[in-house]
Amino acid sequence: MNLAIVGSVAIDDIKTPSGHREHSVGGSALFAAIASSKFVDCGIVGVVGEDFPEDTVCSLRQQHIDLKGLETGKGKTFRWKGEYCDLNKAETIDTRLNVFADFCPKLPESYKDAKYLFLGNIHPQLQLDVISQSNAEIIACDTMNFWISGTPDLLEEVIKKVQILFINEDEIRMLTDKQNIFDAADEVLKKGPKLIIIKRGEYGSIAYAKDLLYFAPVYPVRNVVDPTGAGDSFAGGFLGYIVKQNKLDNQTIKQAMIYGTVTASINIESFSFDRLISTNKDEINNRVDFLKKIISVE
Amino acid sequence: MNLAIVGSVAIDDIKTPSGHREHSVGGSALFAAIASSKFVDCGIVGVVGEDFPEDTVCSLRQQHIDLKGLETGKGKTFRWKGEYCDLNKAETIDTRLNVFADFCPKLPESYKDAKYLFLGNIHPQLQLDVISQSNAEIIACDTMNFWISGTPDLLEEVIKKVQILFINEDEIRMLTDKQNIFDAADEVLKKGPKLIIIKRGEYGSIAYAKDLLYFAPVYPVRNVVDPTGAGDSFAGGFLGYIVKQNKLDNQTIKQAMIYGTVTASINIESFSFDRLISTNKDEINNRVDFLKKIISVE
Repeated sequence: MNLAIVGSVAIDDIKTPSGHREHSVGGSALFAAIASSKFVDCGIVGVVGEDFPEDTVCSLRQQHIDLKGLETGKGKTFRWKGEYCDLNKAETIDTRLNVFADFCPKLPESYKDAKYLFLGNIHPQLQLDVISQSNAEIIACDTMNFWISGTPDLLEEVIKKVQILFINEDEIRMLTDKQNIFDAADEVLKKGPKLIIIKRGEYGSIAYAKDLLYFAPVYPVRNVVDPTGAGDSFAGGFLGYIVKQNKLDNQTIKQAMIYGTVTASINIESFSFDRLISTNKDEINNRVDFLKKIISVE
Repeated sequence: MNLAIVGSVAIDDIKTPSGHREHSVGGSALFAAIASSKFVDCGIVGVVGEDFPEDTVCSLRQQHIDLKGLETGKGKTFRWKGEYCDLNKAETIDTRLNVFADFCPKLPESYKDAKYLFLGNIHPQLQLDVISQSNAEIIACDTMNFWISGTPDLLEEVIKKVQILFINEDEIRMLTDKQNIFDAADEVLKKGPKLIIIKRGEYGSIAYAKDLLYFAPVYPVRNVVDPTGAGDSFAGGFLGYIVKQNKLDNQTIKQAMIYGTVTASINIESFSFDRLISTNKDEINNRVDFLKKIISVE
């Protein structure tokens, strides 16, 4: 197992223009793990409450996701209630940390030597705690506006220590106080990461490194049911592909951008990870081929 | 001369985060004509006032732009005063139609058989008047929210009669009342156009036809000085390339999208068309090569 994934596990209550689902299982760790499980075996570190559905645990096992790092705490699973009035922006209605409040992520022994580590969007202090337990060569992390404004110094520490940063375009502007995203990305490259993946929602994503600039378009999804987990399922697909190839050259990064785009596109076609968990290699590869066609000039 | 261009000619007063320029010569016809003149000879139909600078007329002639269709009316040139607080959206501070108020576009005899006709963003009634005078086989048009809400029936008539529609993503949503731009584009294809170019500002553009979906990224400009004319210089570069090839197959359309992206990227690096008028084939081709590189997966 060469990919350890740390993040939140949640039970969400979500309204979107397509409908409403209560008890929608989600969280950054699960979306990322299910997406990457399409390419490689991976293991999760996270915490659930006593109310966490047993059938979800079985489904994750069936995806060959290692759950040794998934603790069960006393009390209820982390809960998020939100609404998407337009599909690009979630309004938080309620957040209950529950068992997540006292979460101290612990890497199981068998995860410590995983070459790749993904830190989903959680408190930067927890991300740092995990980094200190891991021998990973390649660490990737995600974050959000809440930590950029709330715990900037801790986040700075994390960013110093990772090779790959996933970040939204609004957030990289906020992080660097630069309006032009390429100027912003140059600023972040000085802090430590070798590769920045800028996520632009319905406009696709950009891979940016010292010697790389690559634009990936979005996959044209007709019916977005629930955007929750789009970024995490992108990161999971991206990293799954990278870990499978076990390479981080520009050519592999470009391909990984396309795979991440595709896993995210499948994920947003249903609530929770209904679509993502049941998709297969054929569907993923068909979408990859389609995407390559619509961006090819020749 | 195989490309006739009809549109506004203006003297603008523009503030952007980069600065302020009074008497900035612009207008949809000029931006489009200068961009297309990098590929082919073209002719303008438009009106200027007695105050229009003679040296601009000379510069246009030097670009081999045919000015037989450029009338001089009694009074002042059309004036627009605007400000860009953020670079994606202009606030109109003042508009003075001046000679444009009584403009009745007349195609000179030598323009009537031009195979390609571009109708820049002007009143749909004027666009219809021009269509009725032209024998063009391929007609392209641009429009804006003002006409979509103000003269929807006339605009519908125009759209029925054109092969190519250039439109912003917000505007195609407004035109069709569909949020998903692919659904919106399907709706527009039923009305008449064979090809829709959806412009997404800093997120690039999409070419959409029955058997074509193509995403072009934006060229990563570091210093946007003035976005005025971005859409027109895109349309001009796109059409200039198409007219030069004299083909409208998917492969040519994809290439044209890249060329349009590049002419627009050069145009926004200065006020007025300072940069666009002085650019050359080498600079354009270098940017085309760069763009192809950053979207190529292989």
